[in-house]
This record gives sequence, C-alpha cells and structure tokens, in this order.
Amino acid sequence: MRATRTVQKILSNYEGETPGVKAKLCQMLMHGKLGGTGKMIILPVDQGFEHGPARTYNANPASYDPHYHYQLAIDAGLNAFAAPLGLLEAGADTFAGQIPTILKVNSANSLMSGTAGKDQAVTASVDDALRIGAGAIGFTIYPGSDCAVDMFEEIVEMRKEAAAKGVATVIWSYSRGEGITKEGETAIDVAAYAAQMAALMGAHIIKIKLSTDHLMLPEAKKVYEEQGIDISTQAARVKHCMDSSLAGRRIVVFSGGAKKGADSVYDDARAIRDGGGNGSIIGRNSFQRDKADALSMLGKLVDIYRGKA
Amino acid sequence: MRATRTVQKILSNYEGETPGVKAKLCQMLMHGKLGGTGKMIILPVDQGFEHGPARTYNANPASYDPHYHYQLAIDAGLNAFAAPLGLLEAGADTFAGQIPTILKVNSANSLMSGTAGKDQAVTASVDDALRIGAGAIGFTIYPGSDCAVDMFEEIVEMRKEAAAKGVATVIWSYSRGEGITKEGETAIDVAAYAAQMAALMGAHIIKIKLSTDHLMLPEAKKVYEEQGIDISTQAARVKHCMDSSLAGRRIVVFSGGAKKGADSVYDDARAIRDGGGNGSIIGRNSFQRDKADALSMLGKLVDIYRGKA
Amino acid sequence: MRATRTVQKILSNYEGETPGVKAKLCQMLMHGKLGGTGKMIILPVDQGFEHGPARTYNANPASYDPHYHYQLAIDAGLNAFAAPLGLLEAGADTFAGQIPTILKVNSANSLMSGTAGKDQAVTASVDDALRIGAGAIGFTIYPGSDCAVDMFEEIVEMRKEAAAKGVATVIWSYSRGEGITKEGETAIDVAAYAAQMAALMGAHIIKIKLSTDHLMLPEAKKVYEEQGIDISTQAARVKHCMDSSLAGRRIVVFSGGAKKGADSVYDDARAIRDGGGNGSIIGRNSFQRDKADALSMLGKLVDIYRGKA
Amino acid sequence: MRATRTVQKILSNYEGETPGVKAKLCQMLMHGKLGGTGKMIILPVDQGFEHGPARTYNANPASYDPHYHYQLAIDAGLNAFAAPLGLLEAGADTFAGQIPTILKVNSANSLMSGTAGKDQAVTASVDDALRIGAGAIGFTIYPGSDCAVDMFEEIVEMRKEAAAKGVATVIWSYSRGEGITKEGETAIDVAAYAAQMAALMGAHIIKIKLSTDHLMLPEAKKVYEEQGIDISTQAARVKHCMDSSLAGRRIVVFSGGAKKGADSVYDDARAIRDGGGNGSIIGRNSFQRDKADALSMLGKLVDIYRGKA
Amino acid sequence: MRATRTVQKILSNYEGETPGVKAKLCQMLMHGKLGGTGKMIILPVDQGFEHGPARTYNANPASYDPHYHYQLAIDAGLNAFAAPLGLLEAGADTFAGQIPTILKVNSANSLMSGTAGKDQAVTASVDDALRIGAGAIGFTIYPGSDCAVDMFEEIVEMRKEAAAKGVATVIWSYSRGEGITKEGETAIDVAAYAAQMAALMGAHIIKIKLSTDHLMLPEAKKVYEEQGIDISTQAARVKHCMDSSLAGRRIVVFSGGAKKGADSVYDDARAIRDGGGNGSIIGRNSFQRDKADALSMLGKLVDIYRGKA
Repeated sequence: MRATRTVQKILSNYEGETPGVKAKLCQMLMHGKLGGTGKMIILPVDQGFEHGPARTYNANPASYDPHYHYQLAIDAGLNAFAAPLGLLEAGADTFAGQIPTILKVNSANSLMSGTAGKDQAVTASVDDALRIGAGAIGFTIYPGSDCAVDMFEEIVEMRKEAAAKGVATVIWSYSRGEGITKEGETAIDVAAYAAQMAALMGAHIIKIKLSTDHLMLPEAKKVYEEQGIDISTQAARVKHCMDSSLAGRRIVVFSGGAKKGADSVYDDARAIRDGGGNGSIIGRNSFQRDKADALSMLGKLVDIYRGKA
Repeated sequence: MRATRTVQKILSNYEGETPGVKAKLCQMLMHGKLGGTGKMIILPVDQGFEHGPARTYNANPASYDPHYHYQLAIDAGLNAFAAPLGLLEAGADTFAGQIPTILKVNSANSLMSGTAGKDQAVTASVDDALRIGAGAIGFTIYPGSDCAVDMFEEIVEMRKEAAAKGVATVIWSYSRGEGITKEGETAIDVAAYAAQMAALMGAHIIKIKLSTDHLMLPEAKKVYEEQGIDISTQAARVKHCMDSSLAGRRIVVFSGGAKKGADSVYDDARAIRDGGGNGSIIGRNSFQRDKADALSMLGKLVDIYRGKA
Repeated sequence: MRATRTVQKILSNYEGETPGVKAKLCQMLMHGKLGGTGKMIILPVDQGFEHGPARTYNANPASYDPHYHYQLAIDAGLNAFAAPLGLLEAGADTFAGQIPTILKVNSANSLMSGTAGKDQAVTASVDDALRIGAGAIGFTIYPGSDCAVDMFEEIVEMRKEAAAKGVATVIWSYSRGEGITKEGETAIDVAAYAAQMAALMGAHIIKIKLSTDHLMLPEAKKVYEEQGIDISTQAARVKHCMDSSLAGRRIVVFSGGAKKGADSVYDDARAIRDGGGNGSIIGRNSFQRDKADALSMLGKLVDIYRGKA
Repeated sequence: MRATRTVQKILSNYEGETPGVKAKLCQMLMHGKLGGTGKMIILPVDQGFEHGPARTYNANPASYDPHYHYQLAIDAGLNAFAAPLGLLEAGADTFAGQIPTILKVNSANSLMSGTAGKDQAVTASVDDALRIGAGAIGFTIYPGSDCAVDMFEEIVEMRKEAAAKGVATVIWSYSRGEGITKEGETAIDVAAYAAQMAALMGAHIIKIKLSTDHLMLPEAKKVYEEQGIDISTQAARVKHCMDSSLAGRRIVVFSGGAKKGADSVYDDARAIRDGGGNGSIIGRNSFQRDKADALSMLGKLVDIYRGKA
Repeated sequence: MRATRTVQKILSNYEGETPGVKAKLCQMLMHGKLGGTGKMIILPVDQGFEHGPARTYNANPASYDPHYHYQLAIDAGLNAFAAPLGLLEAGADTFAGQIPTILKVNSANSLMSGTAGKDQAVTASVDDALRIGAGAIGFTIYPGSDCAVDMFEEIVEMRKEAAAKGVATVIWSYSRGEGITKEGETAIDVAAYAAQMAALMGAHIIKIKLSTDHLMLPEAKKVYEEQGIDISTQAARVKHCMDSSLAGRRIVVFSGGAKKGADSVYDDARAIRDGGGNGSIIGRNSFQRDKADALSMLGKLVDIYRGKA
C-alpha cells in the first residue's frame, strides 16, 4: 500500500531509525479507517491485569474473550490493538496479519500493597513480540514514582533491542507515585513533562493522558503564568503536549481513562484533533459498551478525526 | 485488513508455526491486486548478482536504479519484492512499509570457475531482515550439486532462527550441479523432487521452475510410466509439483526464466493457475520491458490469476 | 585538518588512551570558531529532561524543536552539542557528521520525590553513541548523594567500554544530595573536589559549576585558610579547579546555570579564560534567548576566549 | 562543518543506514581540498603487504616510514588514508583526528603459492577500527576466485558489525582467480559486475579498477554488443560502472594500478570525472614519487576533480 | 627503574598501544646486562617441540631440565626467556618475577607428514600468559605456506586480545612452505617481506632469520637490482630488514639457526649491531654448549652489542 504524503512526512521525523521500525509505524498509520490520515485510534486491553477481570470485562461479558477484542479492533477499522502477552497469544494465530498489534511488555496490578512501590513487572520481551508478530512493544513508565529510575532503565534497554530488530516502541507515560499529587497526575505541566521524557528516551509513539489546567510544579507554574502559555482549553493543552514531544516530531496518542458518556469521548477527540494530536487510545470506553454501541462510537470517532464530525 | 477465507485456509496449513511468520505470510497474501485470492505475483531482482548488471538491467536502463523496482512492484500491485541486501537497503527508507519485501540471503554469480562448485555465498542474515523490515528471507538451494549438503544445512539453520523471530522463509529450489543433466534441470521428476525437499526442510514458500515432461532419474521414470502419472501438460506438471509440496499445504510459486514473448508468459500463468499453483515469480520478464509494457503484462497476469483472462 | 600545537599538547596529556578517543577529543577541539585554540564552547540541551519542557523551551518556543539546537550549535560555530538520546536522534540523520555530538547517557528529572534519592536514570548506552555517531558519552554524577556510589560504579563501567570503542567520556560532576548543604553545592572546596573525583574516575572532559568562595567542609576549610589558597576571585577559583583536575591535564568546562544577564555570562567566561579553564558549557543562556541574541552572545564569548574581548 | 548540498545528496542515498556510518562518510566527503565537492582522493598504502617492502617503498625510501604517508595525505589535502593495522597504529597517536582513516582488514601477499587459492587473510577487526579511530574498514574481495564465497561471507559479516557500530565499509572489488582470464581482470563487463556485487553486499564505498573495452563473459559480450552499450572511452566505461553501482547511489573510486607517467594519471582522473565517478584511490603513483612531485601531482588531480584542469 | 632515553625513544614508537604492553616491552628492554641499551638477547627454548628432545637437549644433558634454561638466562643477564607452556610452567613458581618470559603459544613438530601442511598448533593462550606472568606471547607464522592465511588470522586475533590485556606480542616470521624455495627461505627479499608482514599485523617484536643475498621473487629481484638496494653484506641486509619493519619503528631480533662455531655467532651479532638490529635470539647456540661455555659466549655477545667487541 502506497503511504500517503501525510504518513511519509510523519515517518521522516524518525531520523536514523531502522527501516524495520519505520515499516511498523507505516503499517499502523496506513491501517484501518484512519489509514493514511496520520491519525490513529488504538484499542488497549491491559486493564484486566491492572484492575482485575470483573472490573474490566464484566460490564460487557463478551469481552472476557480475547477474540472479542481482536474482532472489535478489526470491525471498527482501528489502527492497532495493544495487550499483554497472554491475551495477544490467545488470538495470535486466528488473527495473524489482520491487525497491527502492540505487545504490552510490562504490567501493573491492583493487588500490590502501598509499600510495594509504584512499579510494573516486565511480563514479556522483544523476542515475544517478534514471535507473535507484534509490530511494537508497549511499556508503561511512572515518572514521579520512586521506582522511576528502574523503569526508565528497563525501557531504554528494551527499546534499543526492539529498534535493532525492527520493532517500534510505544511508551505509556503516566506520572504517579511519591512525587506526584492526586491532582498532579493530570496536571498539564506534568503531562507535558511526561511526554517530553518519553520522547527523550526514544519512544516512537507516546501515550499520555488528557490533562487539566492544574499546574503542580511551583517552578513550572511560574513559567506557565509569566509566559502566558495557553492551557485554557483541552485543545490548547493537547497542542502544548505536542510541542513538548520534540515539536510534534513524535506520534502522541491520548487516553481518556475510565468509561464515561459518549459525548465526553467525542469532545475529547475533537480537542485532540484540534490541538494537533495524533489520536486516541480508547479501551474501557469502547469494549465496556456492547459491540453495536462501541462500533457506533468508534465510527463517530473516525469521523471526528477525519474532520467530518 | 481482514484476511479472506481463502487466505485463512492457506495459513491454517502452517500448523504450529509462530504467529509472526503467519502474519508475514498473511501480509504477502493480502497485499496488492491479488490480495485475498491466495494467488501471488512476486518481483525478484537478484539477477544483477547472478548474471551481472548489463545482462540484467540494460534492456531497460531505468532498472539500474533500485527505486525503479520498488515502484514497479507497488504500481503493479504485486504481493512482494525480493532482492539482495544492498538493493533492498537502497530503497528501504523511502518505501518502508509500502510493500512486503523478501531479503535474498544467499547469492550466486557468473564469475566463478568450473572448479568452484555450484554454490552460493551467504550475503545477508536474519538480523538484516529484521533491521530493514523484510517479511521473509529467500535462500537458493541447488539439489544435485556437490555443495547441496552445505546449502541444506545453512538454510535449515537460518530458517530456524527466522521462524523464531517471526520471519518467513522462501526457498528457491533449483536443481543443478554434478548430479543433474542439462535436460534434468527442468525435468518434471527433478522439479517435483526439488519442491518436496524444500517442503521437507521447512520452506514456507517454495519457488521452483516450470518443468518439461522429461524424466531424468531412471528409478523415478519407471514409476511415472508404470503408474501413469499425468505429466503431459504444464498444468498437469504444476499439479504434480503442488502434490509434491505436502499435498498443496505449502505455497508454491513458479519462475519463468529468461525474457520471452508475452503470450508465452500468459500461457505459463494459466498453466500455473489451472494446476493449482499459487502464482508467478517474474523478474526479467517484467523489469526488462519498459514500464508501460511491464504494467500491462502484469495487469494481464493479475487478470489470469483472478480467472478473468 | 591539521591539529594545532596547542591541541596536540592537550591531547598528549591523555596518556595511554586509545587513538579512537583522542581522535574524538581532537575533532571537538578543532571544530568551530574556537577550533585549534584549546578552548571550547559546548551547547548542552538536557534541561527538558531535568526541568520539564515549559521551563526549558518556552522562553524561546522555536527551541522546542531538536533541529533548532543542532542548527544553533552549527551556526554559532560551537565545538559540540550534547543532549539525551531522543533529542539527538531527532536530527541525527539531517546533521550527520556536521557537528560533534555528546550523547547524555543518564538523566535527572524534577518529578522525583524527596524520598527517591538524588540519582539519575541511565537512559542510553555506548552502543547508542556508536550507532548515532556521537563522539562522546556524557554522564552526571552527584558527589555527596547517598546514590553516589552507584553512580560512580555506573560511569566507571561505561567509560571502560566507551574508551575501548574509541568514544570519549564527559563527566558532569555536580555535588548535591544528603552530604551537601545548599551553599555547599557551589562551594569552591566542593567544586574542586568534584573535579578531582571525575578526573580520578577517568573523565576525558570534566564539567563543573562555577563556584563561590564558600568552603563547606571544615577539614578542608582549615587547609584553605592556613595555606592561603587563593579563592578570592572567580578566576582564582577556576585556576584551583584546573589544578585539581590533574594539574590541568584534563579538559574542564564550566557551566553557568540558569539564564541571566549577558554581561554576567561574559564575566564568567573571562574568569574561566583567565583562570586557565577550557571553556563554557552554556545551555539556557544561549537557547532561551532568541536566535539573533544567542548568536551575538556566543560570538562575543568566542571573542573572549580568543582574547579579543 | 556544514555539509554541502552535494554531500547531503550523496548521503541521502544511504537509506536506512545508521547516522554513525553517515557521519563517517560525511567526514571523508567534507575533508581536505575536495571537501564538499562529492569527489574524493584516497591514499591507500597496503602494497607492502601485497608486494613486499622493496617493491613498495624503495623507489622513495622516505616512504618506508608510516608517518610519511600520514603526512603526505594531510599535506596533499586528501580525503582519507587507508592502510593495514600495523601501519595505521604506527601513527595513530601522532595523527589522531587529523585525517579520516580506513583500516584495511584483510591482506594479500605475494609469497603464497599457486595452490594456496586466491584469498586474503583477515588481519584486523571492527573493534580495531573503533579503538584506533578509523572511520571505515576496507576489505578486498576477489570475484572469480574459488575462494570468493568465503570472502563474500567474511565481508558481509564484518559489514553488519561495522554498520551497527557506526563504521563505514569500503570494498575493494578486484576480479581475479580461477574464473577470470588475464585480460578479463580489467575487462569492462567484469569491472561493472564487480562493482554491482560489492554494492549488493552493502558496500558504502566501492573501489574498482579502471577497465579496458575487453569483454570477457560471452553471454555479457552479446548484450553489450546487441544493445550497443557505450564502452568506447574510459569515461563511458566509468559511467557504466557508476550505473552498475545502484545507478550511482553508491560512492565509487577507481584505482590506477602500478606507477606510470603523470599525464596518464591525469587522463585517468579526467575520465573518472567525466564519467561521473567519485574519485581516485592512488597509492604507488603518489608515494613512489618524491614528495614534491607527489604533492604537485595530487594538487593537479584536485584541480581536475574541481573541473579546473 | 628509570627507563633510559634510548628505551623511551623505542617505546614512543608504539603509538596508541596500551600502557600495559609498553610496560612489558620496557621491562624486557631494561632487564639484564643489556638493560637500557635498546639491544636484546633472548633465549628461546622451543626446539624440543619442533625437533624432539634428543636432538635438542642431549648435547648438554643438563638442559633437559627447564630450570637449567631459566637459570642460564638469569645468569647470563639476558633480556627474556621464551618457551612453550609446559616448559615455562615447570619453573614459573621458582623463578616468578626474576626474568621476563615470553610464552610461545604455537608450536611445530617434526612428526607431521609431508601432506599435513606447514602449520603450527596453537598450544597456549593469552590467559595462560597472564596466569604464569609471561610478559609476551610468541607466535610463529609461515609466510608462503598454504596454511599462512589461517596462521595470520590466528595471530591477529590473539594479538588483539593480548594487547588489550597488556601482554606484548612477538612474531617469529619464518617463510617456508609451498610458495618458498629452499634457498628462498633465507633470501633477503623474503626475509624483509616476512618482517614487513609481521609489522603490518601488529607485532611488537619481530623475529626473523639472518638472510643471504639470494633474491627469490622475480618481481622483487628486478627492483633490488634496478634500484641498487645494498644487500652485499649481512649488516646491509639487517639494515634493509629494519627499514622493512616500519622504518625501524619495531624491535627486530635475529636468529642464527642451528649450532655453529662461536666466531660465526659473533660475526652475526656484529652484523646485527652494525645494521641497526635490536639483537639476537639465540637458543641452540647457547644451551647446547655446556654452561661455562655458554656464559662465556653470551658475555661476549653482550660486549658486542655494547660496542666493546
């Protein structure tokens, strides 16, 4: 498939990267209903590890089945499907080659005690990604956690291996932990900072949360206020996060968090689009709805990213 | 992209293979104008190594440029493009992700003396394939050569590594050397045998030559004659080669050799189609024509494989 | 390019070092407007990791773009450009071979809590430096931190690998942490001590902060006072730091910290020059100004180091 | 140093290559009196290994000393200096960083018997190149030799390692051995073929001999004659070799062989220039003259490549 | 012990070499009665492997005992003692630290058939040298043998390891084998060539045989005669061999071969001295005499090298 100019422009930002990685980014960018637009919708299904099965799947019991998610991503024409090893393997043969996959290689869980540290376990490898044909690895970092140094060192090492073998790297950059207040987790200064760090560690695709206009870091707050950085709207905040991702030279997708009303999801997408973001990573808001609803919502999101809604 | 039933059926024959390899086969089978039909046309450009540049490219001087071949394969809607490392690398960035590629990892040349043995040099690795994003490695064996044991052992080792890393293996199985007469090189018993050996060594895709009704091996000849194996037409011989490739459980593509008249190329394709073969691997007959002619011929071949011509 | 006598004299101090490392030092010393003088100005852009994007880039929004910094360093005729992996990679192809680069291989961040320890994460490797063509690795140590032992052991291991592979090592030696008072961070005894430790661990280039005449360590204070070590002026303190760097056998560059008035920057440079230091590493004071201002200031600094201002 | 547009254009042909390799190519292309023109003159001094010391150095006894060659290359403003390990090491410290070097990693010698096979010993490694700061490895292949398969496999393996570590690869492609007649060694069809093979194995710079209008391979001869490929002049033959090097996407330099009259050397250079070649690799014709003569000749060659003579 | 200027000058030729290697060379050059003069006498005892015990030791039965050789070398004030692993180990404890040793790491034997190829077995390792405290490894190459490529590749690999670990390398460069006539084994053109190759492969000390004025290689003969290279006396030939060893930048010691009259040994030494060679490696001519005779002869050789005889 011929890459569009828009996609070629995006790929050209990944200077000096192996053609193997660029091919994987191209495949994601050219796949599905947003193929060629430079926009992406990714389906992530790692909440079963993080929140447990009942909280994750039971709202839509069909979603207990891994095949459900593969099929949803394909039917909705999404760009990629991300999940931990066991879940991907459960459909890897049936759906081989039908949708780009992102192997989530580390995982959090809700059973850990308060003393355990905000950390994730490395639960898969680059070789696993190659074996099951995943085009990228996905890794979560927790900037602000006292475990952050270790997490940074893990992903840097894995990224090096992955890139050499033609596998792209997606970093979920979610600030939390000892250094972050509750409000700070979604503060705009913290979100932009999280994006910046992921970019500096070599992420090919960065996943951050949509943010509020809260400013957590006093030193940063001063700069935002004195220099009048526009953080008044979600679109403005998205734009600031794109600037913070090597001036938009890296693909950034935004997550919406827990299930909420459809209109709210659409508003988010419009803000992402208007702020120049690359798209949505949307899990619970899609698979916790029944399939018809989910397909309808995802279709609407495609329309929004295509500028038709 | 949703794999068709036909393609899913083909993939199901690769039992126990890694999803990574199946994904690569799926991408080739779903790509281009024959995408989803189970039929394939592959553009191979390794003749510069085997026959030298003038004999290879000069009939169509635009073809000295590696980009020409990438573009031809894309414009003609072919399934894949196969070439040695230097040639693939010369367009690896520009065309990253736009067409499945097969990295030819061993290479013959015409400068070797009669005493050198019928052999090929290993000129690239599985790691190279990963790095440049090639979906498969291609390896030539010469059954009948005194070097065959070495070649067999090389490809078996490389296939093992490739499959573990999600890279498919294409074996060019071309009988020649001390054990093979000139006529024997295209004899049907030898061709079917070459296909069988490639299949038994684990090839995912087998490339053999179209054959004549000559029978080289006396012991085999007896069986063909006594048991009345139909080798009277090219289609019958293609069918016999498919039977010899694990009863058609492996993808087999056929090569046509040196440049010849278009009608002859079409006849070959119809025979391949009618005999149940998977398609053509067509190099000199495409790129040694000027581009308009080549596109017209390849378009016609697509029609033939789609049963429309 | 023929190395000047001055540069050859400097290189001869790196006894027993691999020619590969010396070649990299030579390239930095011979590059740009100070080429051949034995003086250096280095542009470091790692503040995005340490302080976040808004505080770092927003004063001059063009500087969000990695290309801006490459171009600034080239246009100003600086000796080298230092940055973390993601930032260097974003221009590694466009600017390949056009300016010596220093890959910052560990990184601090401002999101870490007070309980996390004063540490940096290792965010790149010697192999990354080779792959992207960086002539040196840069590593920060925090003498005085409870994490210092770990940091020391990390850089010693990386330096060994780097030197064997012909890559130079720059150590940012910044005292801070449990063992250091606020005033002590810039105390002259502490700065000289930090330089000495970096030198003893094998740094090829040492980066320290300009210091005050404060003396933090009581035992040291006694010696400075009894023996009348001259620390009365910035130039005298620079000289003392050079003495502390193997009697000037190692290249030492000084940083100025946060953005301040141009005259103050010039005064610093004159003190560095007069004290026998090798130059400035100047980040925020250059790229947080608009480009014309920055070029004018850097031009003036070149003149100062050339003894013309 | 800012790369010229011409050099940037050349570098852009090395798609998907590591920035480290591109930086090394850039340094060679930007170095010396031809810096920035896209043309190169390289001084190779490996004849002492191949022909012995007396035949190599005695015509100009000063040239027994390794420093002589470094100094000659620097004084003449050449782009690079190529030699075996012992010779490079003998000046590696004195001249560190002053001229790009190419470490010749395999070596022939004239003491081998007729039964030994046309082969070269691997006499240095990629790690040696890194350690002494060489920007490239140089490797000779003998297409047509019965040892060619082994040589091909050696260089392919070394190139992979070198490129990953940011070291460029120069292939000396010299057809000789059992498959090649005496006249064939310099036949145009054989030379173009040798260039093609080097390119397909991933050479970044290709070194071949200037050729005659002889055609050695009968099958090739037919094509050259029927298709009227212009091989009537040296310039036309150079052009054909450039076409055969991925349509000029690879740097090709030409060697002149044994010492001869200066006018003949100039004529060669004009033909290389007019045929679009990248330059000369000129050993015995430079260092076997006394230094003044050599500098005068090399100066004239620079003028020729700059289009002024 | 303070190195003399003469020794420092010699060491300075080993540019870019590890200080560990230089220290070992310094220890040999500063040891014994010739310590500090830049001249060396080395006792090699590897003939038991090459010629068998009776031929080697029985002329002086005390020499069956390894301790005899250690003691001889110490008593005679030689610079170093070279032997295979078993022999060195037999005195390694008793004489630890008392005399520099060279571990001979490959060995020939006289039991091999004519069809076995002129080769030596690798019989010790760099790790063995470190373990027993040997300052250097010794390795024999046979230029001209059909096994030469393999031998070259072995020593190049071992030298790399040795130098990195601070162990010096001595190459015994003895032309013999399929490419060499009987007279050619000691021909001056062949000897100078052997020295050159050892130097180009990175030998720190080169050991060759004294040569005759025979010229074996026709192409070389022409040059020697046309250019009037002086090979008329042994001293002239030694000088030519020194020139051929990177213009005297490498230490070269000469061997005398089988036992002969003392006067002949002295004449050899005077020629080595007058031609600028670094000394003698003298085995059978010392230890096959009884100890008093040997000490007297070695004392006389010391006098010759000190210019007193």
